[in-house]
This record gives sequence, C-alpha cells and structure tokens, in this order.
Amino acid sequence: MTTNHPTAAILIIGNEILSGRTQDTNVKFIAERLDKAGIKLLEVRVIPDDESAIVETVNTLRAHYTYVFTTGGIGATHDDITAACLAKAFGVPLEINEETFTILQNHYKESFNASRQRMALMPRGSELLKNQICTATGFKIENVYCLAGMPTVMQNSFTLLLPSLKTGAPFVSNTVKCDLREGDIAQALTDIQNAYVSVEIGSYPFYRTPPDIGTSFVMHGADPVAVTNATNAVIAMVEQFGGTYTVDWFCKK
Amino acid sequence: MTTNHPTAAILIIGNEILSGRTQDTNVKFIAERLDKAGIKLLEVRVIPDDESAIVETVNTLRAHYTYVFTTGGIGATHDDITAACLAKAFGVPLEINEETFTILQNHYKESFNASRQRMALMPRGSELLKNQICTATGFKIENVYCLAGMPTVMQNSFTLLLPSLKTGAPFVSNTVKCDLREGDIAQALTDIQNAYVSVEIGSYPFYRTPPDIGTSFVMHGADPVAVTNATNAVIAMVEQFGGTYTVDWFCKK
Repeated sequence: MTTNHPTAAILIIGNEILSGRTQDTNVKFIAERLDKAGIKLLEVRVIPDDESAIVETVNTLRAHYTYVFTTGGIGATHDDITAACLAKAFGVPLEINEETFTILQNHYKESFNASRQRMALMPRGSELLKNQICTATGFKIENVYCLAGMPTVMQNSFTLLLPSLKTGAPFVSNTVKCDLREGDIAQALTDIQNAYVSVEIGSYPFYRTPPDIGTSFVMHGADPVAVTNATNAVIAMVEQFGGTYTVDWFCKK
Repeated sequence: MTTNHPTAAILIIGNEILSGRTQDTNVKFIAERLDKAGIKLLEVRVIPDDESAIVETVNTLRAHYTYVFTTGGIGATHDDITAACLAKAFGVPLEINEETFTILQNHYKESFNASRQRMALMPRGSELLKNQICTATGFKIENVYCLAGMPTVMQNSFTLLLPSLKTGAPFVSNTVKCDLREGDIAQALTDIQNAYVSVEIGSYPFYRTPPDIGTSFVMHGADPVAVTNATNAVIAMVEQFGGTYTVDWFCKK
C-alpha cells in the first residue's frame, strides 16, 4: 500500500441507500477526486439516520483517517440529525452559527420559519461549507466535513472545499482491457505484481454478451513511471498469451 | 426502528470502488431485495483488498448482524484473497472444497491449471454458492455469504441463495413527490412522523433544472396499513400547503 498520503473515509448517512430506493453516486464522485488529489480513500460506510450509529461511526472514522466526509441529513426536516449527532460525537454544544443564520435569514426573509432556523444549528467550532446551488448548510468540524446528500449540492460543496485539503502525490491508473481469461494469465500477472510492489494491479474479469468476455487489468499507484512500466509489462504478457487488447492511458486523458 | 426482523450488512471488497474507477451497483441490487424480504440492511462498508481490513471487518460485522454479504475477491488472481481472509477470520484452515474442485475440473479440463485450482480453496466448513453464469466460486460460511464482485454473477448467485434466508415481514414504501420546499412543511411532517412511529418518513429535496424543484417524501415500513395511512396524511399535508404531487404506491407495482 501507499505511504505518506493523507487518508480518508466517506460516511453516507441514508436510509434511502440501505432500503435500496436510491442508487448512491456520491461515493464515486468523491472517490475519483480524492484519488487525483493523492488522498487515499480507505473506507466507505453507509449507515441509517440513527443517532447512536452516527455518533459511534463518526468517532471511529475521525480517529482513524486524516479526513472524513459525510453526506446526508443536513436539511430542515425531522430526519436531518447530522449536526446534532456531530455535536454529540465531538462533545460540544449545538448552537446557532451566526454566519449561517444571517445567510439563511437574508435568503428566506419572511419564510425563515423555526424549521429553517434549525438549519443554522451546528456543533460549536464548526465552519459553514458553502455551495453555489442552494442554501444547504454543510459544515466542517475539525477533520470531519458534513455535506448534503443531494448529489448536485454535494458535488458543488466538495469541489469548493477540495483545494483546502492537504494532498499527496496524485494517484494515476492505466487500464488494459483484453480478451483473455484471468485464470490463464494469473501466474504471469502475479509475477508482474511482485516486480512492481508500489503499483496495485487489479484484475477484473467481465462476462457480458459473448464475445464480450475477457479481463481488464488496472494498474494504480502514485508513481507514474512505475505504473507505466507495470502497464507495459502487462501489455507484453497479453501479447505473449496471444490476446488482443486496448489501453486506457492516464497520460492521454 | 423495526423489531423482529433479521438484519444484514454488505461488505464490498474492492480497491476499484475506493479509487473511484468503478460505480458500485451491487449495494442497490442486494438492498432492494433484502428490503422486500423483510431483512433489515443496517450497514454497508467498502474496504480495500487488504487482509487485515477484511479479517477485522468480517469479524465485526458477522458478530453484529444476522447475515453478512461480501462481494469481490473470489477469482483466480493474486488480488483475490477473500477465501484466505475468511479462513483467517473464522480461525479455520483454507482447504480444497471437493465439490468445487470437481466442478472446476470438469469445466476447465486441460486448462485447469494451478491458478484455477486455487479457486477451489475455501475455509473449512464452507458451502459452494452456485451461479448459472460462470464457474465463479462464491461460498457461504456460517452467516457470511461471499459473492463475486461482477454484477451479473453476483446478481445470479444472490437470487439463487435468497430463498434460503430467514425473512421478516416485507418492507414496503410509498413515495409522494411534490413541488413544495421541505422547509415549508417540516413542522407538519414532524407531526405526521410522530403520529406514525412504525413508519420511517424520509424527506428528500431535489433541485434540478427549474421548475423541477421540490421534495420527495418516502414512507417506509413493514406495516402496510401504517405506511398507507402515513402516506395519506402526507398527501393531505401537501394539499393543505397548496402543492401538486404524484404518488408511487407500493401496491401498484
């Protein structure tokens, strides 16, 4: 595995994912960008909108990783409990964030009712995380970033906060897609993996409508020269086994 | 939350999800079917192809939930370490499963090389989980079901194993989609939630291209009468606030 990279976890707070109603897309969006920023995403968890689950999981994750990104539960309704849970997790009061209160008041004017005022409640010590889509009140406390669940809003907030994070050498990856079966090349691939220990080599077979059957090899790492050399070794292996292939090179994107 | 329902966790073993390369779809597939079977999915985790992470997470999850479903890491290559990790987690030897060995041998014949023979290695006490797509060697040990990462194969295996699980009263859900903003109805919605404690009421605002802005309310629970009554209360609330709406009723699917 890599060293000297900041690490991260994503915590999806959402009954709608656990019931199967909603296809999550927030993980992929955040994961791709962390990877390019050289921040190693090491864990994702999806948990219910449940106080004890949120408090316990946040405290576990924030102790283990450089950054924790949560999505969901920051609106105006009864099921939006992220801010209250984070206050509990950090052992600080939940209180009105004045900056947020003013922004919401100016936006909602006469519609700034008690439910919307609740959206200005944040754990003491939080900073508002803005977005350019709506008035959703994401916030950051220490190394935990609490974002909206709605993808458009989450994406905008995350894009705005990303430059403030400590980053590492960017991860890059090449993909070699070929028509060989992984069981035929497994030993040769192991030899390549052993020769390039700084590169994670993944083997992903696919069985679609014949003849669309084969394997994709993904070479991923923070050393672009090693990733390129490992990719060339995999290409040579595919040629040696008589396979045909296409390559998706990171440097041509 | 619900009572008397079997519980479950999903464990996605996959560097390709954590690097952002791959959009996971296995969670939604399994989650939807567990929900209909009355099995309460309470947690999802995504972790790397890393022995200590797998062993530790499997042991945590299997102690907490009725069922654990893992996906990924059961092929023929060096990155396929699920079986070895499960043996370690359960403290049992990793050994040839004779049934699996015979199936693989009959399928691959003269191509049944050392790498493919490795696919017949399972923790002692495992049962093979079959699928109708390919020879991928999913297995079950106690309450842990280890499935392929490839969606087509995972889906087929899961569909075949589902009837063997202990189930509960099926969960159902109705969705009311309307053009109201959640901040306007939050208090009224809280009152409905308090009146129907057996129903989880979720509020999901959406901000798409105007005028496609509003909120979806999801009423979810194992008591279809309570879910229906809560839905009717939400509809009455939307009408009272002058909203227009559509309803997706579970009973009309």
